Amino acid sequence: MHSTAALLVERLIAELPTDAVITDPASMDAYRWDRANDPDAGTPLAVVRATCTEDVQAAVRLAAASGIAVIPRGAGSGLSGGSTAADGAIVLSLDRMREIRIEPATRMAFVQPGAFNAEVKAAAAAQGLWYPPDPSSFEFCSIGGNVATNAGGLCCVKYGVTTDYVLGMTVVLADGRAVNLGGPRVKDVAGLSLTKLFVGSEGTLGVITEIILRLVPPQKPPTTLVASFPTLTGATDAVLAITRSTRPSMLEFMDRPTIRAVEAATRMGLDTDAAAMLVIQSDDDPAVAAAEIAIIEQICMANGTSECYLTADPDEGEAFVQARRMAIPAVEKQGSILLEDVGVPIPRLGDLVLGIEAISAEHDITIAVLAHAGDGNTHPLLVFDPADDAQRQRAHAAYGKVMDLAIALGGTITGEHGVGRLKQPWLEDYLGADVLELNQRIKHALDPQGILNPGAVFARQ
Amino acid sequence: MHSTAALLVERLIAELPTDAVITDPASMDAYRWDRANDPDAGTPLAVVRATCTEDVQAAVRLAAASGIAVIPRGAGSGLSGGSTAADGAIVLSLDRMREIRIEPATRMAFVQPGAFNAEVKAAAAAQGLWYPPDPSSFEFCSIGGNVATNAGGLCCVKYGVTTDYVLGMTVVLADGRAVNLGGPRVKDVAGLSLTKLFVGSEGTLGVITEIILRLVPPQKPPTTLVASFPTLTGATDAVLAITRSTRPSMLEFMDRPTIRAVEAATRMGLDTDAAAMLVIQSDDDPAVAAAEIAIIEQICMANGTSECYLTADPDEGEAFVQARRMAIPAVEKQGSILLEDVGVPIPRLGDLVLGIEAISAEHDITIAVLAHAGDGNTHPLLVFDPADDAQRQRAHAAYGKVMDLAIALGGTITGEHGVGRLKQPWLEDYLGADVLELNQRIKHALDPQGILNPGAVFARQ
Repeated sequence: MHSTAALLVERLIAELPTDAVITDPASMDAYRWDRANDPDAGTPLAVVRATCTEDVQAAVRLAAASGIAVIPRGAGSGLSGGSTAADGAIVLSLDRMREIRIEPATRMAFVQPGAFNAEVKAAAAAQGLWYPPDPSSFEFCSIGGNVATNAGGLCCVKYGVTTDYVLGMTVVLADGRAVNLGGPRVKDVAGLSLTKLFVGSEGTLGVITEIILRLVPPQKPPTTLVASFPTLTGATDAVLAITRSTRPSMLEFMDRPTIRAVEAATRMGLDTDAAAMLVIQSDDDPAVAAAEIAIIEQICMANGTSECYLTADPDEGEAFVQARRMAIPAVEKQGSILLEDVGVPIPRLGDLVLGIEAISAEHDITIAVLAHAGDGNTHPLLVFDPADDAQRQRAHAAYGKVMDLAIALGGTITGEHGVGRLKQPWLEDYLGADVLELNQRIKHALDPQGILNPGAVFARQ
Repeated sequence: MHSTAALLVERLIAELPTDAVITDPASMDAYRWDRANDPDAGTPLAVVRATCTEDVQAAVRLAAASGIAVIPRGAGSGLSGGSTAADGAIVLSLDRMREIRIEPATRMAFVQPGAFNAEVKAAAAAQGLWYPPDPSSFEFCSIGGNVATNAGGLCCVKYGVTTDYVLGMTVVLADGRAVNLGGPRVKDVAGLSLTKLFVGSEGTLGVITEIILRLVPPQKPPTTLVASFPTLTGATDAVLAITRSTRPSMLEFMDRPTIRAVEAATRMGLDTDAAAMLVIQSDDDPAVAAAEIAIIEQICMANGTSECYLTADPDEGEAFVQARRMAIPAVEKQGSILLEDVGVPIPRLGDLVLGIEAISAEHDITIAVLAHAGDGNTHPLLVFDPADDAQRQRAHAAYGKVMDLAIALGGTITGEHGVGRLKQPWLEDYLGADVLELNQRIKHALDPQGILNPGAVFARQ
């Protein structure tokens, strides 16, 4: 080990609590990958499992003094490789910082980044409150990762994304200083909107160690409609008509390969002949929800639905939502997957889905498509046999083509997963040189040494 | 005139459309002040009334080449002096850029910055949609100014602030380049959250020339409750209990000096003996709203209300809201005012209001308090005779004391008006040296010459 590195590890061990520093290679393995499973993940110098803001400050300060990279991570559930370890870096894990305090009087949650999204939801629910953002991974993703990626989910179509609920935070900057941004207030315009800048910055500008979240009154029990369609276009036309005239709290799409994978895993009797299926919920007051769902049912019929199933029973509705949530693991049973995350304006959803079908045929790669259709955010799952090199290469080529298509349709290369390392090569194509340069200027202003999560979002220097 | 300046004016006239450049001092007077009425406003070199993004680019590029300051302005309704002209600067007015296009299929508005908030609301309403943010000045403030200050309003307690509705924008940077940020998508996490950074940046990072706004389905006709209280604390305790257990779409507070000023202006029969009055609305479905307002009425009674008046008639309710909206002009009839804009966490609202009463007594200055109480955002109006120098000085001293109090209570020095020039001297006290320095690093990265709105937010170099 290089002497600078050896000295850094010594000082980390000296300054941090017992057991906070891991250097044993086997034990470090648990901190090298996120769910992007990057085959090129490196071996870090050490893993620091911080217990408080001061631990994070010490780790960042020492790393900065040595010019060593710091790779922050939460629960490791990220899908874009934002937490992939690099050789010789410090992996800074926030998984032990899990405190949650709910303040019912102000409807706010004061949380640490390692707490799971589901734990924040549960703590809020225990006080009769609700934290809406709901990534499909909510049971095993951390709130810090949610904030770092500005995570989305299923209810965003009505309730917005993570940033809409972040009021303040404590951030450790690249030189080890900790600052408090924002605070427990809905309105605060004193100075630049730094809280919002750090949301979605994927650990490239600082390490978030405390978060203040806005909570809202609980969601009402939803009414659910499940509609099958004989054509993809029937389903996407229905989506457009629904979002134009109603306001569902959920509007999810699955294509035939997805339906079949879920049916194989659940045996719940989904319509495996359908080209696509929509799962739609309204969470308005029961009478209002019933009226809204009735309008949505009419829209589905006008767009050629082959089967509509309506239920006001929240548990039965939840079974369909669970089916939708298990789409990714269900498809994963067929092989390795590359998980896309493009987004388009809703009127282009049909073009996107048809275009993906063409890319699938052209590259001879199975692509199962699921979508948070109500906000245009689409997850094509590209399935390949990891042992088949040619197939893997075709899958990677198709992965890029899907992003090219989204850009051509006026969409984005990532709606909710983040750029990480997986999508970094496409960022300039999407943003253009001028906006990328603007991003880089801010990155450089806040992290002049480039030690914070190098290679994520921005190309490695 | 200095020759660099003379040359710049010549080139502006040569490159911009006829009548876009004003240099006549009398005609420029209309562009020297906003509603902060800064007595120290300077005389600009020229006023540029841009007609399109390219005009803005030309003006900024030429100014940058000469190192001349650019002061962007919208409708001039700002309350913090963010658009106060400076000697020898270019005032860049967006007042002619007023196009509004509503896209009902995606529920979005594509607007230019000079359009008034009320015009955006009206255009959305014509398509059966709603743009929620509602500053009290909505009939005469521009949407560009709203975005530049991250403006708030009355419905924010339920519907959030301007940034929650901004999906994308075109910005002219300090070197004259134009970039498009974000886009017509609810979800987009590709790159840093630059759209959100520019919201609330008060013209210090770039000039916003096109804006994409998210619209929502129309608000339902509200049910209104007006409650009077014999004590300030009764009213603020009621506010806390209401926000803890219900979700009103409006929760406004007026103290006795405000009530009396409004009553003098309207003769609508307000309770002028009350220490404070709340105007509360629920816009849920009628039956749900009735139940919610009934709970709120119970809370008011439990907190000693002297009079409660309930109406489900939206027009009658709107009369009370109008009364609240005219509070500022009504109080202005009593003298010049310094308009405060502090915010505190709701549980500290009582301490804030009592503390302001003490500051009023101590400095012998009438302070009329109105508040968007439901989100803790409070507007003490400090009244003084502009001809009485001693009184003016006492008012300015009290103005600072109110901000000190807000900071001590864990609050902010500006909830929705912005820092501008009026509050710039207090920004460091509020943010602290580290966060201010973080703001400055971003400012410097995006505007290294410091030509964009110098003196606003940041101290003049």
